[in-house]
Order: sequence, then C-alpha cells, then structure tokens
Amino acid sequence: MALMHSWLESANAPGCPFPLNNLPCGVFSHGGAAPRCGVAIGDHIVDMAALEAAGLIVLDGAPLFGAPSWNAVMAAGPAVWRAMRGRLADLLGEGAEARAAVEACLVPQDGAVMHMPFRVAGFTDFYASRQHAFNVGTMFRGPENALPPNWLHLPIGYNGRASSVAVSGRDVRRPWGQVKGPDDAAPRFGPSARFDIELELGAIVGQPSDGPVTVAEADAMIFGYVLLNDWSARDIQAWEYQPLGPFQGKATATTIGAWIVMKDALEPFRVAAPAREKPLLPYLTEPGPMFYDIALDVALTPDGGTETVISRTNYRSMYYSAAQQLAHHTSAGCRMEVGDLLGTGTISGAEPGSYGSLLEMSWGGKEPLKLGDGGTRSFVADGDTLDLRGRCIGEGYEIGFGECRARVLPALADPYAR
Amino acid sequence: MALMHSWLESANAPGCPFPLNNLPCGVFSHGGAAPRCGVAIGDHIVDMAALEAAGLIVLDGAPLFGAPSWNAVMAAGPAVWRAMRGRLADLLGEGAEARAAVEACLVPQDGAVMHMPFRVAGFTDFYASRQHAFNVGTMFRGPENALPPNWLHLPIGYNGRASSVAVSGRDVRRPWGQVKGPDDAAPRFGPSARFDIELELGAIVGQPSDGPVTVAEADAMIFGYVLLNDWSARDIQAWEYQPLGPFQGKATATTIGAWIVMKDALEPFRVAAPAREKPLLPYLTEPGPMFYDIALDVALTPDGGTETVISRTNYRSMYYSAAQQLAHHTSAGCRMEVGDLLGTGTISGAEPGSYGSLLEMSWGGKEPLKLGDGGTRSFVADGDTLDLRGRCIGEGYEIGFGECRARVLPALADPYAR
Repeated sequence: MALMHSWLESANAPGCPFPLNNLPCGVFSHGGAAPRCGVAIGDHIVDMAALEAAGLIVLDGAPLFGAPSWNAVMAAGPAVWRAMRGRLADLLGEGAEARAAVEACLVPQDGAVMHMPFRVAGFTDFYASRQHAFNVGTMFRGPENALPPNWLHLPIGYNGRASSVAVSGRDVRRPWGQVKGPDDAAPRFGPSARFDIELELGAIVGQPSDGPVTVAEADAMIFGYVLLNDWSARDIQAWEYQPLGPFQGKATATTIGAWIVMKDALEPFRVAAPAREKPLLPYLTEPGPMFYDIALDVALTPDGGTETVISRTNYRSMYYSAAQQLAHHTSAGCRMEVGDLLGTGTISGAEPGSYGSLLEMSWGGKEPLKLGDGGTRSFVADGDTLDLRGRCIGEGYEIGFGECRARVLPALADPYAR
Repeated sequence: MALMHSWLESANAPGCPFPLNNLPCGVFSHGGAAPRCGVAIGDHIVDMAALEAAGLIVLDGAPLFGAPSWNAVMAAGPAVWRAMRGRLADLLGEGAEARAAVEACLVPQDGAVMHMPFRVAGFTDFYASRQHAFNVGTMFRGPENALPPNWLHLPIGYNGRASSVAVSGRDVRRPWGQVKGPDDAAPRFGPSARFDIELELGAIVGQPSDGPVTVAEADAMIFGYVLLNDWSARDIQAWEYQPLGPFQGKATATTIGAWIVMKDALEPFRVAAPAREKPLLPYLTEPGPMFYDIALDVALTPDGGTETVISRTNYRSMYYSAAQQLAHHTSAGCRMEVGDLLGTGTISGAEPGSYGSLLEMSWGGKEPLKLGDGGTRSFVADGDTLDLRGRCIGEGYEIGFGECRARVLPALADPYAR
C-alpha cells in the first residue's frame, strides 16, 4: 500500500503521523464547544459532528458523532467503521468535490483540547511479552523458574480498574501505599519510592459478546488500538500481590493515547506470531497473522531537562495477540462490552535497550539507567515526563499513534488533608 | 430499636424480611411496564416512580425513581437517602394520612419481575475472612504457611468483572475453561469439573471519590449491602491464578440479591471488629464499629430434590470491614464511582458448618458433603439451585436481604456452536 494523497498538504508530508491512510479517532474540544468526535488528518482534526450536521457523512445509526466518546460508533459495528473510512477517504482525498465544505469542518490540532476518546467499560491487563515475563520472573524467582508453568499455554491476564484510565496530557500523582521492604519488621504507609511505567498497547473492544468467541471472531470485535502506559508502584505491588494479583500498585493511573488507530489502518502491517514453543489449544490458535509491525519508543524528559529515548521495541515481539487475549477472556462465558480495553502487558524486546519498564531497564534498581543529560534513573522521578510513541512504517507513509504523555507530580505531603 | 408498625399488615408479621424498618431498594417490572425503582414493604413493592409522579415523594434531584437503577438516587447523596427513608416511614407508617394514595402505588411482590438493582461501575472482590484465607491457604500451602504474610496488614483484594454480575434468578451456565491437573502432561479445554459458590456480602458504593479516603469517609460513601454469590471454577482458577490472580475462574457469573439493604437499616446491628492480631496502620484503623451482626445461610437444592442448608455463618466473623476495604481501595489514588461493588470475599466462620464455599466444606473434594436427601457434593452439580440468605434479628423484627438464588445449567456441548 502506498500513501493515499489528500488535498490537505500537511497530511502528505513525509513523516506525518496522520496521513489519509490513518484516520485515527479522538475526542476534542476547541473554542469553548462541547467535546465531540474528531478524526486526525495531517495537522488538523475533522470535526465529525460538524461533518455529520452538514450532511457530508450520514451513517447507519446517525447521529453518531456529537457525543464525547466513540462508543456509539463502535456499537454501530464493523460495516459502519468501514463505511466511515471509505467516506472520509472520498471527502479528504485529492480532487474531492466537497473540499470547500469539508474545509469548513477542519480544526487545527494546535489549540484543540483532547479528551478520553471512549468510555472505558472494563480494563483488563495482560502479560503477553515473553521477555517481560522472563525478566520479571528472573528478578523474583531466578532464571530457572522465571516463566510460570501456565505462561506458554494461555495469555495470563487480570482485571484492572477502568476508573483509573486517563487520557494523554493528564499529570499523574505519585501515590502513597502500604509497603514493606524484605528487611522491615512491619509494613508502613508512605509515598511509593519505586514508581514505574509500562509500555503497552491497548486494544479497544468495539462489539459486545455473550459467551465464548473464537480468535477470528475476537479479531473482528476489535475497533482499534491506543498507546497505553500502565503506571505501576512496584513497592506497593511487591507487598500486596500474593496471592490475588496486583491491586493498588496498578490503581493510580493508566495513561492512554488520545488517538485510536483503527484496525483497518493497521491491516497492511499484519505479521505472524513468533514460533510457538508449546502447541496452543485449538481455542487459542490463530486463523491468520494477528500481530502488527508497530515500532514503539519510550522517551523520558526530566523536569527542565532534555529528552532521552530509553526504549525502542516493537509490538511484533509479543507472544499473544489481542485477538487471542480477547478469545481467552470470553472462554468461561464472560460478557464483553463496547469500550472494554485490553492492555497487552509490558512490551519488552529481547535486548536490554528494548525493555518496556524501568524495573527491567534498571534491573530492579540495581543498574540505574543513564540519561542523555548525565542523570540516572532506577524508577521515575518527580517532574519526569514520559512519552510513549508508536508508528507503522509503510511505503512512503507512516501510521502514527499520536501523543501518550504524562508528567509525574510529587506525592502529596498528607493525602488525607482536606 | 423495635418494630416500626405499618398500616400494611404483612409488613408487621413475625419473620417478615421487609418490615418498615428495612425498606430495601430494588428494580422491578410488572404488567408490561418498564423496569423502575421499587422499595419492598411486607409482601408488596412500593412503586417509587408512581409515588414520585403522584407527588407523594419529592426529593432533591427529582425525578429520581423512573430509571431502571438506583444509581441516580445513590449519586444524590446521603442526605437524600435519609430523607427518602424518613418520608417512606411517614407514608407507610401506622395512621398515615396518605394511605389510600400510597396503596395505589403498591404492587404485589408475587408476579413482579426483579432486575439488576443498580448499574455496576466496577466490581472488586476481597479476601477478608480469616478462616477462609486460612482454609484455602492450608489446602494449597499447608497450615504453617496458610496465611500470606500481608494478610493481617491489609485487606487483600482484586478487581473482578462488572459485566458478569447478574441479579438473583438468572441461571448460571457451567463454564468451559483451560484446566490442568497436577498429573496431566498438558492442559486441556473442557467444562469445569469443580464449579463452586462463594457466600459473600457486597457493599455498594453510593458516592464517588478522587483520592484517598479515611475509613470514616468510606463508611459514609456506602449506600447499602446485597447478598453476593461469586461463582468460582476452582479447576480453571488453580491453573491460571499464578502470578496475577483469578481471572476466567471468576468470570462466568456473580449473582447478587435483588434487594439492596440500605446502610441505615443496618445501623442497629453494628458490631465491633474481632481482636486485631497485628496492629493496623492508621489509615486502616476504625473510628467505631464497622461490622454488622448478619446471620447468613446457604441452601442447596438438587434438581427435583429437597433443600439442605449447607452453611450457617455470620458477617461479624470477618476481619476487614467494607469501610476498611474501600479506604484501602482508594489508598493509591484510585477513583471510586457511584455503583462500585465491593465483595467481602467468602465468609467462613470458625467451624466446618459455617464455611462459605464447597471447596472448604468438602475440603477440596476429599470429604464430600452429605445432603439431607442422601446425595453428596464436592462441588455443585448441574441442576442444583443455590440460595443465599441473610437476616439481622432485632427485637420483634428482622431485616431480611431477600432472595439471592441461581440454578446451575449444564455446560454446553460445544461452546463455539453458532
């Protein structure tokens, strides 16, 4: 596939994350207007509510775009998703007849405020990078027992907290929590000293289900993908997680990107799964390639300092795809809802420069990471800004995921002060 | 406190679960009308939407009662909750002037269909019975290491699946899942052979929070309590739960009672916590009694057979209260929402006859439970109906929790057949 040319020149520029091939979905506001659905194109946003009001796009189930979330569009189903992309390609493509009318519905990205792109029904986080599971397992249990016995047979996951999911740009406050070091006689309640990030992708479930679904059915239910940073207080997590899993260590915040890249935009980048070390049970086998070639970076910028890219990895290094995770998620009859968010789990490649958490980059704090400006980090510091970035590199164009950024605020002196 | 007399004689009958002292909240429909809020009184339901439409109850934020959930009432806050109870006591109390008008708003419970009483925002399940944690820990790790090191310091909890919560009366289908016995070479995918119940109470969060709250603040946020049966596929759970906790083993269904008993109805039954074996950190200490004296039963009725009460226990045997659980839940900054549901975890008393799961009653299947009609159970059988019951016994009256019932349907022959 090649670059699809738009009459909007900024969309055709080399390296532009939002060419006509992409058309990611967000929720924006500007000039005091209410938040509504928008689609990014070049350096602008198509005000989808305005486009709909002007009669330029009329889809089944209309009106769809005036709400401050993409849930209604998702609920309308894959035929509507495809029809929307087709219509936008017509309206925004080179030589479009309606150009002047569409131009009236464009808003510059610069100056627009981005909001949560969808209402999160449920948030589930997985653990699907073999290298991440091996790294963490090695730190906690040694390399011989690093990978849990079930890991090669099922996509391990746990339910997270939907209410903690926040859009890119919202600061994240360092949490307090109950912690106990291995040599402490008793636990204490204090600010987390090992606050960390997790580089992930989030798959957004766009169609409901009631009963088990196959991997192919699961893939068809997915609307799109966002960058996802699952903030993790490692010291809280270490003390609390046995035997029922992570809880408050993961409850402070999960930052997602403001733009949902639709699955259809990723189709040219589908790649097959890595070799299976153990045969998967039939309900988890894939009818075709279920991964995507998505290059991912993490950048850390200290307060007032300069940026260091601390990780470069790729989604294709994962072992279980979002479609497999979703199929497994439904296997015991769990109902899935429009707006369910499935995190991949931390994406760590095979080399140290490709790890997706500071826990791994600093090997549990034993080998602090060197930053470009001379500083070091074992975990995030107050004032740090963390940026996740993702892109698919096509022939003459890119599919970008937009910004997934948050700054770390210091812990409150007294979290109970009113 | 004594019985509050109503002009509705059935509400004054000895053993009636719904006297004027109770006034539990449900959502019902009858005669083809849309589901709406109702309050149980005696053998009737007050149609709250009709009462509101007749101008007999007008509360801040009205209209509040026409929706098929109590979420709007909960969001209106504790002053409205209290005003509602006060007004209903006037309208339904002996000698009420408006009796005839109120009678026109009564619907017999017999013939009404009950629906989910609230929209579940999030579902969190805890592990707060010391005996249950000890029993399960003993089975898995032996009595020396039964209680995890963190157990006496914090209320262990994990996020469950809100979409799986269903109201009393809905059948529960035995799930399929990935299982692996200790002697199996590889896992397989099949129907759960160890499908179980968990006797719990659910606390319903009626007010939101953003940031840590104290135990006293948490208590004030709770709207009421329901019976809760957290169906658990033990074979799926055993294979999947390391290291991130229960997932598909708990995803099939969670049955809740149709009636929310408001916290104010439970006030006369407040009791103090059991002695603390280790001092709790200040953020978990209680400003007063945070438990309730609620007698709880579990009854099992085989298909076409007779009922056996298989457990008798009491909520006051728990170690961590719902208020402590909620305070802990917010400790790392997790936002809480109106309609969040917090399960106590399995409620097991100190004696075998007071355990809250078949896993414990049959000691992992080693000592099958004898039923009254001669049958035995290690776990639930297809066709079994499970009933949870709860009541507070006051002076001359009871506060009942209503029905929390579900029947077990056999697993599908092929869960992927369409």
